[in-house]
Amino acid sequence: MSHSSQLLQDAIDAFSRLPGVGKKSAMRLALHLIKQDRDTVSERYIAPLNRLVEGIKFCKKCHNLSDADVCGICIERSARSSQICVVESIRDVMAIEETGQYNGLYHVLGGVISPLDGVSADQLNIDTLVTRIAEDDIEELIMAISPTIEGETTIYYISKRLKDSGVKISLLARGISFGGELEYADEMTLGRSIATRTPYKVSEL
Amino acid sequence: MSHSSQLLQDAIDAFSRLPGVGKKSAMRLALHLIKQDRDTVSERYIAPLNRLVEGIKFCKKCHNLSDADVCGICIERSARSSQICVVESIRDVMAIEETGQYNGLYHVLGGVISPLDGVSADQLNIDTLVTRIAEDDIEELIMAISPTIEGETTIYYISKRLKDSGVKISLLARGISFGGELEYADEMTLGRSIATRTPYKVSEL
Repeated sequence: MSHSSQLLQDAIDAFSRLPGVGKKSAMRLALHLIKQDRDTVSERYIAPLNRLVEGIKFCKKCHNLSDADVCGICIERSARSSQICVVESIRDVMAIEETGQYNGLYHVLGGVISPLDGVSADQLNIDTLVTRIAEDDIEELIMAISPTIEGETTIYYISKRLKDSGVKISLLARGISFGGELEYADEMTLGRSIATRTPYKVSEL
Repeated sequence: MSHSSQLLQDAIDAFSRLPGVGKKSAMRLALHLIKQDRDTVSERYIAPLNRLVEGIKFCKKCHNLSDADVCGICIERSARSSQICVVESIRDVMAIEETGQYNGLYHVLGGVISPLDGVSADQLNIDTLVTRIAEDDIEELIMAISPTIEGETTIYYISKRLKDSGVKISLLARGISFGGELEYADEMTLGRSIATRTPYKVSEL
């Protein structure tokens, strides 16, 4: 009983189980909760987590996180968008939404094809993607998938499955990062960015 | 509705309220909970926090955190210890317990006298300390209080209050940190450590 309180120790252990939270941080977090009154902690910390695990669902159309059977993005944008951005995970949806540059639909695959990790195509949400393209009025798929061997394989597999659908498939532009130093870019990226160079335009202010 | 799920957003906000947890970490933590099944999360994360805020108390003798009215340390050590280590906060108790060098009682003041911060002596747990010394068989107070002006003031105040009690008051040794480089020690510490130098003893192995 190193802390004289088993309740405290249990709470520290709970926080320590979270990724990136060590023993010291866990103790600080538990003590932070104790400093506040009971009702505040229940209402501001515990209740939201409870509601999250009780209520969260996956959208049955795009497999994004959702509070209802179909997510807000699908409901809001289905009528006016004919683009689907195909991503590996929910975090990618968030990252793309943060940019504010895309206003279409999404499809979360739940990973990429990776034989080494035992992930095959039928474990991913590819069948539902094919169905969406057959049933809805989708004109373009934007493959926002990591440029790794597994990612490229997944893009190739999906494009083969959709060969006869007439849907246009595009990739995210690859090249030098904004604000990146040329000398630190890897050869592959730098080489490709020369091959796929774009005409310079004086932007119209 | 940036994440398509209000439940997720609420959980992220809850995590962000914790000290040292930013938006990105909060999202990672919330997604970590979603990845696990509902019962696991309830049992391993939510239940311990609930029990903590519902059940935690402060020991009515030493003001340390406790699961019962009197804490484990007071119950276990009262009979055999006549030493009280006086500390500012619960975290100091934990730090000293971690060292394994002390096996006596504690008294948590709940801060130090600090007129600038509006903390006066009667807001601290000093009356209960005086009572303990009068009632229990206490021979020594070890002042494990930060060597700041406020800390020194608090030590002075307590020693004045206990002048006639006959209790022995000692301070933590001050000097060079173990493993510290001499050149980086501040003048005050280095000066004091010369003045209060100790005789060298060949340790008996």
